[in-house]
Amino acid sequence: MPGLRPSLNNTGYAAGATRLEAYLYRYIPLVRHMQVRVAGFDATGLTLTAPLAANINHQSTAFGGSLVSLATLACWGLTWLLLEQEHGTHIVISESHILYLRPVTEALVAYCTLPDEPLLENFFVTLKRRHKARLELKAHILQGKILCARFTGTCVAYRENRPSA
Amino acid sequence: MPGLRPSLNNTGYAAGATRLEAYLYRYIPLVRHMQVRVAGFDATGLTLTAPLAANINHQSTAFGGSLVSLATLACWGLTWLLLEQEHGTHIVISESHILYLRPVTEALVAYCTLPDEPLLENFFVTLKRRHKARLELKAHILQGKILCARFTGTCVAYRENRPSA
Repeated sequence: MPGLRPSLNNTGYAAGATRLEAYLYRYIPLVRHMQVRVAGFDATGLTLTAPLAANINHQSTAFGGSLVSLATLACWGLTWLLLEQEHGTHIVISESHILYLRPVTEALVAYCTLPDEPLLENFFVTLKRRHKARLELKAHILQGKILCARFTGTCVAYRENRPSA
Repeated sequence: MPGLRPSLNNTGYAAGATRLEAYLYRYIPLVRHMQVRVAGFDATGLTLTAPLAANINHQSTAFGGSLVSLATLACWGLTWLLLEQEHGTHIVISESHILYLRPVTEALVAYCTLPDEPLLENFFVTLKRRHKARLELKAHILQGKILCARFTGTCVAYRENRPSA
């Protein structure tokens, strides 16, 4: 269904990535301290990165709190980009799970995949009808091509003027 | 079973809390930026706090990444305190789940409960026998007496000289 998946050219994706990074830096101090960067946004998903030094732990690997925060931001950020044109819509994360598989010894990378079209369609239709909808997202923490952690998060979008339940 | 649960007097608990806070500040830069404090440690569990301003988000409530990081640190920290005398033992968090129930609008508080005696006993016995053991922990994010998020985390402790599996 055209119009649900972002149908942007490369310039459009790059501009969205720039706006998201500016928004995160403006409002979330921890994003600045983690030195998060929006490293990629296209029709397949969103990639965030952060340097190891700012996010290191006592074993000289990535701090688990930084990894789960980066994955949370990747899922929240992708939802923000999907809904950027929907003024008055808020997004919160309601639940998440992370499975740490391997320590991360280089820069942190979180890649959140855009859900399949039927899921996206259902999300937008439900949001329009009920003024509130959930989106289940998956993110991977990667080091090169190696999967280091598997994350799932639920984002809830809601409109200010939704009918009381 | 005496000896498994920490059997400290108030001075002993306070000293453990001080050592944990110093350890976290020494090795994890994000702990400094979050301004985490070890606010309480006793026979029931461990409490960590962090000010809202350093951990705020775009809605002027606590950033989800800060909440899940604080809960992760509370569980990891309690395990660290349990194993402080066990030299050469490492602790990693292998998995976690968080359910966000309400926004946090004041200082962040994460309280990790010490598990029941049988679970602790099993943890220590397994660690001694296999040089590796898992501990399932629960943490609550609280605002006063109101539960704002429910967290579960699995800590894995292992000894350097464990037999290859």
